[in-house]
Amino acid sequence: MNLFPALEDSALTSMNLLNEVAERHPAAISFAAGRPTEEHFSYADIGRYLDAYRTYLMQDKGYTDAQVNRELMQYGRTAGVINDLVARNLLVDEGITASPSSIVVTVGCQEAMFLVLRALRASSSDVVLAVSPTYVGLTGAARLVDMPVLPVRSGPAGVDLEDFVAQVRRARAAGLRPRALYLVPEFANPSGVSLSLETRQRLLALAESEDVLLLEDNPYGLFQRGFATRPPTLKALDTSARVIYLGSFAKTAVPGARVGYVVADQQAGSGVLALELAKLKSMLTVNTSPIAQAVVGGKLLEHGCSLVSANVREATIYRRNMSLLLNGLASRFPSLSWTVPSGGFFVVVSVDFRADDSMLAYSAEHFGVLWTPMHHFYGGNGGYGQLRLSCSAVTADQIPEGLDRLAGLVSELRRAA
Amino acid sequence: MNLFPALEDSALTSMNLLNEVAERHPAAISFAAGRPTEEHFSYADIGRYLDAYRTYLMQDKGYTDAQVNRELMQYGRTAGVINDLVARNLLVDEGITASPSSIVVTVGCQEAMFLVLRALRASSSDVVLAVSPTYVGLTGAARLVDMPVLPVRSGPAGVDLEDFVAQVRRARAAGLRPRALYLVPEFANPSGVSLSLETRQRLLALAESEDVLLLEDNPYGLFQRGFATRPPTLKALDTSARVIYLGSFAKTAVPGARVGYVVADQQAGSGVLALELAKLKSMLTVNTSPIAQAVVGGKLLEHGCSLVSANVREATIYRRNMSLLLNGLASRFPSLSWTVPSGGFFVVVSVDFRADDSMLAYSAEHFGVLWTPMHHFYGGNGGYGQLRLSCSAVTADQIPEGLDRLAGLVSELRRAA
Repeated sequence: MNLFPALEDSALTSMNLLNEVAERHPAAISFAAGRPTEEHFSYADIGRYLDAYRTYLMQDKGYTDAQVNRELMQYGRTAGVINDLVARNLLVDEGITASPSSIVVTVGCQEAMFLVLRALRASSSDVVLAVSPTYVGLTGAARLVDMPVLPVRSGPAGVDLEDFVAQVRRARAAGLRPRALYLVPEFANPSGVSLSLETRQRLLALAESEDVLLLEDNPYGLFQRGFATRPPTLKALDTSARVIYLGSFAKTAVPGARVGYVVADQQAGSGVLALELAKLKSMLTVNTSPIAQAVVGGKLLEHGCSLVSANVREATIYRRNMSLLLNGLASRFPSLSWTVPSGGFFVVVSVDFRADDSMLAYSAEHFGVLWTPMHHFYGGNGGYGQLRLSCSAVTADQIPEGLDRLAGLVSELRRAA
Repeated sequence: MNLFPALEDSALTSMNLLNEVAERHPAAISFAAGRPTEEHFSYADIGRYLDAYRTYLMQDKGYTDAQVNRELMQYGRTAGVINDLVARNLLVDEGITASPSSIVVTVGCQEAMFLVLRALRASSSDVVLAVSPTYVGLTGAARLVDMPVLPVRSGPAGVDLEDFVAQVRRARAAGLRPRALYLVPEFANPSGVSLSLETRQRLLALAESEDVLLLEDNPYGLFQRGFATRPPTLKALDTSARVIYLGSFAKTAVPGARVGYVVADQQAGSGVLALELAKLKSMLTVNTSPIAQAVVGGKLLEHGCSLVSANVREATIYRRNMSLLLNGLASRFPSLSWTVPSGGFFVVVSVDFRADDSMLAYSAEHFGVLWTPMHHFYGGNGGYGQLRLSCSAVTADQIPEGLDRLAGLVSELRRAA
């Protein structure tokens, strides 16, 4: 059957491939999965969150039983129903002032990325830039709208500002229209790198002078290792609606709710860009399940709309795991190097072998340890000497054991070399 | 801001426009909304459905508490988690034999339509045919993937088979590649027309000989007015994987769960088409909320996977409402004509005035009654003399009152003519 050619593209096949390896080796220790810890999952939470949201509707909004039933069980508003709670969360945790009407609640952050790219792709000359290595979800969403992704070097600062400007100008000279730069400014996936305050400010100024939007994706920002003040997000620093903010609740609330959002307060048509994104959403998923939104809304309400407060236990686990991982690497691999992030889930290790998909399969099969080949984040152009380790979904016991297994692989390959 | 041109297209703006009129006139009686009845919505059902699904996982599948928590609260399988229950439902209610692995659970039927069209649009010469008047959700999804929609006449049979063949051949002669015909064979939205068994069989044979897929959308099939045997779906009659079946739980389970599905058992690549659709979904919404799926799964389990059995009360309401609507039209409008469907939600009335969007606004403002201008289902090419009345979301009391209001509009316009 003749199908959409991008179905053969590595951006779309890589996720399946990695999942298949994991499924074939259920007993393997996985440093591959970027999913959040399950240690505090509790079924009873779901009902309690729903009840908390229902109480809020009745007590704060004066809803009757019939209105509650309608809000949760009927088709709902395309742009979302918990937008006011999301706005409060952004203010409380990030110092971002966002109008609820500039927010569209989406089916995870992935739908938000699709909607933004679909809206920005006005013609075949529109392209999106992305700091490289790039989260595969952005590349995949761009494939779905036939929009090329042009890489911008990361460099030690998290984004190479000279390369950003150079890529914008090169694209324009080639007749292309660079619409936006996608990046994860805090604990990037996969690099783990964070932008300094100065880099953030310079990036905002350059985005303004070069007339390019910034797509800020911030799934890990809450998970600091230290207790230093968190740097402000690009959106909090943004005074000219230059930043479209992509939000995820998958790492900070309940992954199984599949709720994310986008803040798009740019002027577009007769209103804000969020309205245009909602129009697209009405033909993609119609609306985000209000039951799923209520689960997230209830969790927000239980914690005064602060996900920092809601994630005290989880942040402790990630800090512990990151320390175990970094210390474990140091004690086992004196001749390798790796990134030392100040938070988040990911460490990138530079290895002395070709860390491709067949090596991952070999690692799973013979050593029982999973990791993510970095070449997936370079669209197949490089990264073959690196692998990504995630500390989020492993237990404290699994980390030394998993690193021992990885050390077994490294030793065998050195002996064979 | 320079945005995707289809954002100005009537397919994308019509839904918003109709919602805005409804929001401006909350006291108006709405024959516009195609949403299901809320008369039996109950908040307690949500928790009970979740519990039923949890019990099933533990008792039937032997899950531990931790496994239940993971299934419901963690990221989940892209293709879905309730696929076996959906397959049982299709067998019990529709006599369709579908492998769970040929099913992708989606964020409502709308995402299923998008995924199928995105997969089938291999190049700019690919087009989709649709029986006209056409559900706007199909047209909107096609706009998102830049795929033209070619109308096929409905005619008294529900699909004009000669026109179907003629349109396929005309498209091919013009260098286009017609990939599929979209239709709602049972109680079509908006026309209310159903295909006879003979028409179904002839359509399947023609789709085979013309090498075009059929996209069967069946949201209303359960809601018969009479007690005659329901005709088999196209998918139940399909012996050569010619039909892609689009399923919705919005009318039959819980709209607020936003769960739908697609059955795609066609060979594609090294497996079935469903696998390719799941690849696309991994870059669109990643997975359908397993909490939302569990709500639907629990409702299925409570009723032996039969939605016919789950909807006894609702079907009674729709039968009653359809009779009230048809009888009410007959007693008030001796000189107008309308369709008399054998089930479903919709009646199309041919009127003696221009039933466009401004007339709808006038009707809402001065007479307090909402209906859907039919031109939205013709992509702006015709239908200006017709309006669609839905009987699903009104109460028994509202129907005569709403029709009186409509009669007021009709009388005023006649006096003015």
